[in-house]
Amino acid sequence: DSNLKIFTLNSNTALAEEIATKVGVPIGKCSVSRFSDGEVQINIEESIRGCDVYVIQSTSAPVNEHIMETLIMIDALKRASAKTINIVMPYYGYGRQDRKARAREPITAKLVANLLETAGADRVITLDLHAPQIQGFFDILIDHLMGVPILAEYFQSKNLEDLVIVSPDHGGVTRARKLADRLKAPIAIIDKRRPRPNVAEVMNIVGHIEGRTAILIDDMIDTAGTITLAANALIENGAREVYACCTHPVLSGPAIERIENSQIKELVVTNTIALAEDKKIDKLTQLSVAELIAEAIVRVHEEKSVSTLFD
Amino acid sequence: DSNLKIFTLNSNTALAEEIATKVGVPIGKCSVSRFSDGEVQINIEESIRGCDVYVIQSTSAPVNEHIMETLIMIDALKRASAKTINIVMPYYGYGRQDRKARAREPITAKLVANLLETAGADRVITLDLHAPQIQGFFDILIDHLMGVPILAEYFQSKNLEDLVIVSPDHGGVTRARKLADRLKAPIAIIDKRRPRPNVAEVMNIVGHIEGRTAILIDDMIDTAGTITLAANALIENGAREVYACCTHPVLSGPAIERIENSQIKELVVTNTIALAEDKKIDKLTQLSVAELIAEAIVRVHEEKSVSTLFD
Ligand SMILES: Nc1ncnc2c1ncn2[C@@H]1O[C@H](COP(=O)(O)O)[C@@H](O)[C@H]1O
Ligand SMILES: Nc1ncnc2c1ncn2[C@@H]1O[C@H](COP(=O)(O)O)[C@@H](O)[C@H]1O
Repeated sequence: DSNLKIFTLNSNTALAEEIATKVGVPIGKCSVSRFSDGEVQINIEESIRGCDVYVIQSTSAPVNEHIMETLIMIDALKRASAKTINIVMPYYGYGRQDRKARAREPITAKLVANLLETAGADRVITLDLHAPQIQGFFDILIDHLMGVPILAEYFQSKNLEDLVIVSPDHGGVTRARKLADRLKAPIAIIDKRRPRPNVAEVMNIVGHIEGRTAILIDDMIDTAGTITLAANALIENGAREVYACCTHPVLSGPAIERIENSQIKELVVTNTIALAEDKKIDKLTQLSVAELIAEAIVRVHEEKSVSTLFD
Repeated sequence: DSNLKIFTLNSNTALAEEIATKVGVPIGKCSVSRFSDGEVQINIEESIRGCDVYVIQSTSAPVNEHIMETLIMIDALKRASAKTINIVMPYYGYGRQDRKARAREPITAKLVANLLETAGADRVITLDLHAPQIQGFFDILIDHLMGVPILAEYFQSKNLEDLVIVSPDHGGVTRARKLADRLKAPIAIIDKRRPRPNVAEVMNIVGHIEGRTAILIDDMIDTAGTITLAANALIENGAREVYACCTHPVLSGPAIERIENSQIKELVVTNTIALAEDKKIDKLTQLSVAELIAEAIVRVHEEKSVSTLFD
């Protein structure tokens, strides 16, 4: 279909290539660079008039650069008479500031949604928002895909026995339940609490993990503090071995060192965020979301529901 | 007036301090830093409920960081019930992409105006937009101040004789005229043209410069290619000496080296953009716009016209 065009910005060009190949269209000709003073310079080198354009870009680090690239690309596409502008954002950055936890905090997850709309986006296709409620922050169309089926399929292929799926905190229990359903395993929860003010947190484990192979699951792993403490607590409490998995490998600051030094046997992530070479450690397995996203693009383009992708 | 609060973001804290001192209020307590993954983290540490808030921030390099700081600050102020949010942007970045010069170009000057409005800004106070038409890109209030009076005053104090004010291109003649009026000097124009395709540009000088002291003026100096070529052409054509001046010292890439090696005797700029130490060369004089901006803030706050600032 010559009306469907895929462009990529700079955050995740390898994934974009993979998606374009699976959809069966070439990546559109476009250069995304910087002027001497650091301002984003975009040259779209082919006509997109009347086309449904899909732009692949995660707002991973450097997040502010990647957001501005996205907004400027949308502006250029709009002024070049694209029929629809669809932003495929495998990782939606700024998602963790999604409520006013304290006075005078911004809600960046809502701000970024508004900025995308103001620039002229018609639709956002994303995976595993930090909270599913963020879907409601968009007045434009949003398709919300999930990494769990991809993670589940990988663990199924390993034929692990006596599994237990563990949520590293209260907030992630629903996600753990979804993985557990697919792997036909029970769940457990790490129940951190502070007995008294100024006393160290206690890691209480709710559920049976002794002698079992535990799989910790989260939406993202950033500095890896929570997940590595959780893994070590599981081993201390008698788990046989511990795997960890997440959709978004943010992996900033001390993350890689912590994972290397932790009891985590293998960390399974997806490629919603491209990883620098020095983060591709032996313990880490990266699965591709290209097939899932390619299928979502084709269904959106054919005006079919993407919810069937989860069957 | 306890209803007037001034905050600063990270681009130009020295100027912000100067402005706050002149207005006679302390800089508001606020930390603007980064989370481990590079996302902007803002903590406003005092109540601003019901206040008229002025935020000092130039969108100079790193421009994308500075824009996102601004938008997130506006979001936080809005949610903290500020009465009005006034963005004092001494330098308005992304101003040069202000029209579609070629097919499929973005118009970033308009995009940024829209983003500021979407985040929740009520007013922008700025100096020397790349084109005065950019004022019309804003649906919110905009006050447009000029650096020319500050530059003129400095040159007046030098008591230079036989002056001629030179615009380095056709686009800047109106600005040169304004400086010339204040210095009671004639103007000249560098009229670059390409006689035939694939032939080097010719620097033709329109106006009398022989034996005169020339002052080149532009709104900004970025890589300094135009201004240094112009200065050298003026000397070659008989000017006695050449000064250069601009409001916004962008000074990226080879700028400092070019200025050092050029015939420019002294480059006079303002502090709308903070300069790194290695850019503060002997040839460069930096004048402060703090007084001008402080006066504009006070007048805006007292609901008086700022246009009288130009008398
Ligand atoms: N980029 C970030 N890195 C680390 N913490 C963040 C980031 N963005 C927001 N937060 C904080 O994370 C908390 C929300 O995380 P959560 O409780 O997992 O939803 C809030 O208290 C935020 O202040
Ligand atoms: N940040 C930038 N650095 C260098 N050139 C730019 C920048 N932004 C826009 N431009 C180009 O500068 C031209 C406009 O400059 P001007 O003709 O002086 O208004 C346009 O052709 C733009 O493509």
